[in-house]
Amino acid sequence: MSSSAAAVYAELRLADERDVPHIRRLIHQMAEFEHLTELFSATESLLSSTLFPTPPPPPFLSFTVLILELSPTPLPPSADAGFPISRRIDLAAPLDDPEADAFASPRGGGKVVAGFVLCFPNYSTFLAKPGLYVEDIFVRAAWRRKGLGKMMLSAVAAQAARMGMGRVEWCVLDWNQNAINFYEGMGAEVMPQWRICRLAGAALEAYKGGDEKDGEESK
Amino acid sequence: MSSSAAAVYAELRLADERDVPHIRRLIHQMAEFEHLTELFSATESLLSSTLFPTPPPPPFLSFTVLILELSPTPLPPSADAGFPISRRIDLAAPLDDPEADAFASPRGGGKVVAGFVLCFPNYSTFLAKPGLYVEDIFVRAAWRRKGLGKMMLSAVAAQAARMGMGRVEWCVLDWNQNAINFYEGMGAEVMPQWRICRLAGAALEAYKGGDEKDGEESK
Repeated sequence: MSSSAAAVYAELRLADERDVPHIRRLIHQMAEFEHLTELFSATESLLSSTLFPTPPPPPFLSFTVLILELSPTPLPPSADAGFPISRRIDLAAPLDDPEADAFASPRGGGKVVAGFVLCFPNYSTFLAKPGLYVEDIFVRAAWRRKGLGKMMLSAVAAQAARMGMGRVEWCVLDWNQNAINFYEGMGAEVMPQWRICRLAGAALEAYKGGDEKDGEESK
Repeated sequence: MSSSAAAVYAELRLADERDVPHIRRLIHQMAEFEHLTELFSATESLLSSTLFPTPPPPPFLSFTVLILELSPTPLPPSADAGFPISRRIDLAAPLDDPEADAFASPRGGGKVVAGFVLCFPNYSTFLAKPGLYVEDIFVRAAWRRKGLGKMMLSAVAAQAARMGMGRVEWCVLDWNQNAINFYEGMGAEVMPQWRICRLAGAALEAYKGGDEKDGEESK
């Protein structure tokens, strides 16, 4: 179909526990990109137990990780609806991925893991409908600007639409104008007025006993 | 314990399907407060099917609604941990609630529904832990500034801490300085840099077929 000098074959598939080491390293790369490594404390053990419980819940009804892999050889066609999704990625020239060995796919076949997306259901009371919230969407540096982020976000949007959900939401840093442009180009609205509030760490632990912080009488 | 002129007894309990009509009207009041009624399209039927599926999932592992009720007479003490939570609310004088009839509790006992909170699990990849996201927290106008919002948010924070979760998050409108002050007073950090992106309505439906918007070749 294409006369490009080179191509790889991208596949977006549901993750399982074998992907945990790569997921952890992708999350760390994302923390580096966002200048937030001081907040990074994910371990493989915690990722396994929180993302891949036994038995696994149905995808998209709980925390769901999709892995983006690239294959040097053509892949089977996409499923009619749902995952995996596969797609040919044309390249101007063969691409050197300096992390290819470190990110070799646990599934073999010469595939490399190039990114991931993590999403889970949220809920809009105004719509009275669930939606999907995209906590992370990440492509390794060597593979950016090739339509892979768009492939992943489009896949999540298509899944939400097929499930009859009301919206897909995620967050962006206000200094990341490249990302803002990309998201707006995909049809998203960046909401100017809302701010995220977070209670975490010691401030959260202070509520553990169930009493209110200022010690007001209860009962 | 108190020598106030008047008191009511607040109880925060898990909602069930009988609460749907009140939940819908509380959501509508919240939309009015936020000047966002044009986004309101919740029906009782949709709320029932999306918030109260059969069988009900365990609380706090999926969409969870807590109802705040006020009773004229003392209530049983709170559970050791978890819900319901009860608390005496001292008033300077007996309070006239003009909506008392419209918000009579479906459980009877002269109780009135005064507010609600809706939350569900979210996930932090940096922590590799689930958290709770508070989509809505609302107290009817007659009952504001009496510690009830704090009672509700504290209860959610205590639940998250007891479940070993990493954080509790919610959103606030940047013009609502009263709310920002209240949340900061409870230990929350308002994150200045993050913006919410939303794909909804026709822009979301455009992805339904699974093809990317610009019609790039796939496979």
